[in-house]
Amino acid sequence: MQKPSLPKGTRDFGPVQMARRNYILDAIKDTFQLFGFQQIETPSMENLSTLTGKYGEEGDQLLFKILNSGDFLKDLAPEDLAKGSAANLTKLSEKGLRYDLTVPFARYVAMNRNELSFPFKRYQIQPVWRADRPQKGRYREFYQCDADVVGTESLLCEAEIILMIRRVFAKLGLKDYAIKVNNRKILTGIAEAIGEQGKEGPLCVAIDKLDKIGWEKVKEELLQRGFGEAAMQKLLPLVDLATGVKERLAVLTQFLSQSPIGLQGVQELEEVFRLLEQLGTNLDHVDFDPMLARGLSYYTGAIFEVKVNGVSIGSVSGGGRYDNLTGVFGLPGVPGVGFSFGVDRLYDVLEELNLFPVDRLAGTQVLLTHFDQAGFDYGLRCLTAMRDAGVKAELYPEMTKLKKQLEYASKKELPFVGICGDEEIESGTLMLKNLATGEQEALSLTDAIAKLKGAE
Amino acid sequence: MQKPSLPKGTRDFGPVQMARRNYILDAIKDTFQLFGFQQIETPSMENLSTLTGKYGEEGDQLLFKILNSGDFLKDLAPEDLAKGSAANLTKLSEKGLRYDLTVPFARYVAMNRNELSFPFKRYQIQPVWRADRPQKGRYREFYQCDADVVGTESLLCEAEIILMIRRVFAKLGLKDYAIKVNNRKILTGIAEAIGEQGKEGPLCVAIDKLDKIGWEKVKEELLQRGFGEAAMQKLLPLVDLATGVKERLAVLTQFLSQSPIGLQGVQELEEVFRLLEQLGTNLDHVDFDPMLARGLSYYTGAIFEVKVNGVSIGSVSGGGRYDNLTGVFGLPGVPGVGFSFGVDRLYDVLEELNLFPVDRLAGTQVLLTHFDQAGFDYGLRCLTAMRDAGVKAELYPEMTKLKKQLEYASKKELPFVGICGDEEIESGTLMLKNLATGEQEALSLTDAIAKLKGAE
Repeated sequence: MQKPSLPKGTRDFGPVQMARRNYILDAIKDTFQLFGFQQIETPSMENLSTLTGKYGEEGDQLLFKILNSGDFLKDLAPEDLAKGSAANLTKLSEKGLRYDLTVPFARYVAMNRNELSFPFKRYQIQPVWRADRPQKGRYREFYQCDADVVGTESLLCEAEIILMIRRVFAKLGLKDYAIKVNNRKILTGIAEAIGEQGKEGPLCVAIDKLDKIGWEKVKEELLQRGFGEAAMQKLLPLVDLATGVKERLAVLTQFLSQSPIGLQGVQELEEVFRLLEQLGTNLDHVDFDPMLARGLSYYTGAIFEVKVNGVSIGSVSGGGRYDNLTGVFGLPGVPGVGFSFGVDRLYDVLEELNLFPVDRLAGTQVLLTHFDQAGFDYGLRCLTAMRDAGVKAELYPEMTKLKKQLEYASKKELPFVGICGDEEIESGTLMLKNLATGEQEALSLTDAIAKLKGAE
Repeated sequence: MQKPSLPKGTRDFGPVQMARRNYILDAIKDTFQLFGFQQIETPSMENLSTLTGKYGEEGDQLLFKILNSGDFLKDLAPEDLAKGSAANLTKLSEKGLRYDLTVPFARYVAMNRNELSFPFKRYQIQPVWRADRPQKGRYREFYQCDADVVGTESLLCEAEIILMIRRVFAKLGLKDYAIKVNNRKILTGIAEAIGEQGKEGPLCVAIDKLDKIGWEKVKEELLQRGFGEAAMQKLLPLVDLATGVKERLAVLTQFLSQSPIGLQGVQELEEVFRLLEQLGTNLDHVDFDPMLARGLSYYTGAIFEVKVNGVSIGSVSGGGRYDNLTGVFGLPGVPGVGFSFGVDRLYDVLEELNLFPVDRLAGTQVLLTHFDQAGFDYGLRCLTAMRDAGVKAELYPEMTKLKKQLEYASKKELPFVGICGDEEIESGTLMLKNLATGEQEALSLTDAIAKLKGAE
């Protein structure tokens, strides 16, 4: 006998959590498919040679490694031990667990280059593993949910990312949120324009705190980081920036007038917005933030980040354009653009905003209950009719008191019970009881089914 | 630059395979939900203390173990190496990858005993990992798909398993198959009745070869295994067994007349069949095989196994009743019954029988194509209208020759393209071309959408 436990940083998903997660994932999958994305899955394990060196030194530390099968110590000599764990890793392990979905996707594209038709639009929803220190909201196993288009530089992909985010959020009932967009070329141009070429990284880190700590403190930090006074002066037009996408584009066009790359970034954004207009839609929820920075080491074009307003959770989605997905795997020149939804974070947001629907997640719609064998047998016949009509139905499987059957229904949060008593058997009806309101009515089986179908 | 590869025994699932797998899994999930089963998921990693000792010695060998994070060699002294790998395992690893879905489920039930409402009906569809030697059709990572009801001995669960299998197979277009059923108590009774109590294991192994090698050879094997001549004589009524469920039940009732446990097994099966009748259905596809043996070390009641006729693949589904799921985790007295679908095998069966639908798996229904910027912009407007109507649509994202766009559509096996040329722009129509038949017609956008919706 042992008292079981879970490895730290991992969790079970019970029926309610699964129903809610599926509600989110279905909204995402439906949208991805509507836009022509196709699902793939890659193995949980990859060769360590595929994974290491792709996530920086810290990332390599956080990879979960699989102990070799069989006699895993066979290559380890007593004198090896003095060299430490890192030096002996490859003797004990040659495989690791997926750390993200991007590297396995890049490997997949490189390995299947001849079979795939480009542009290739794929989505992938699978768990990833990181040996991070567990803490609130940070797990060692969690799902990622990525969509990417590779093999094209068309900005229609960027416009469609905005459409997909809005469609998913509309399905989930999220109304108050901002899709922040920027372009890496604009960041490069800004650093150029203030005479601090190549320093967009520290610039953005500091500016990001503008709302919280104010310009004077940001300026202080920038000076400490080696930015010049002249740069501070030149930066001023971006500190007290106009609101509105078009106004900001105008400011940046002016600001970047001497930076060809910066202007190219502005033009790319303008083209994305033109495409949205041509698609018959608008800039709702779109927020152009010329200081938005993510993935500076790999994004080369558009940058996205989505924040839901009025909740404690940070960004729930993000992505960007890159120009060399598969170079490290021997296939150069594959550009693409991708984004991902943070499923765990969306879950927390919907919970915080009380946006999960109750009815549609409950699963079973009706529990048939009985008092005796005759009621049980009558229930059996009703059960088949209901399921054949597509009604999710159960019959309490044991002969027991009605009270216990009703407890089962209420613990499982079922909307209805259908009571099979002598009167119902005689009249060929069901006493259908709404467990939320307590209302009940005797209905023919056909009417009961119609009512249950109508309540979906 | 490196040439990437996959760890042996693992595989990628590309878009077509995923669509087909999802087609199978959707049929299964819909059915599970119709019958009131709720989904759960457990972590990929479990503590080794949860996993080891549950699958026999061979199973322990086949567990994938996770190397401890950080300085994994720190507890290993040079003198430990002489003791071998097995003796040092716990110093290097404390977690392993899920080997099946049953042990994690038992752990979940034991840990959540107070929150769950029993009978608890759960399904679970997740990958499992086994360090088996890879071979054709055997992978180191594969999906299992389990449904169990725990906390009840009601035989309605057994009847519903038969209903669920038939419903899933009907959805998948499978018509020629047998759901073999038996009861562990019948096997116990048979061994008793021939005077070889407790030897149902070797008995079934030998009898299983009856069709292939004939009675004389089976008899030889049984004699070698220590069965007596008298037992051989007593066994004869089961060697040339009548066909038909009712006929066989009659034979077994007679055969087991001196074995109370054997008769109980027969009665349980009879009750399952009575329930099917009461459910308004019949015994189609049900085949009572009194020698069917699976999971003799844990099944205590019903035993199921499903075989599709006329294909090279073995059983595609199986399960049974057990009376002590969670005892090892400190929660005694939890009986249940479960079964699982072999998703990989069902995939192979549907492929072999050519039963995968073509149209419903293709994803995108129409690719809008164009000759120039005007056509592209017109396509953008059409695209939104189509997606708003729920039509899965794409616009080729780059300005390029029509030939290349059509190649994309045909490589992705899309059913339709919608050509956006000058005439179409002028008349507000689309030239909708069926790529399978080559037929094309000019349709208003509304009619084109209606046609695409109708072709779903």
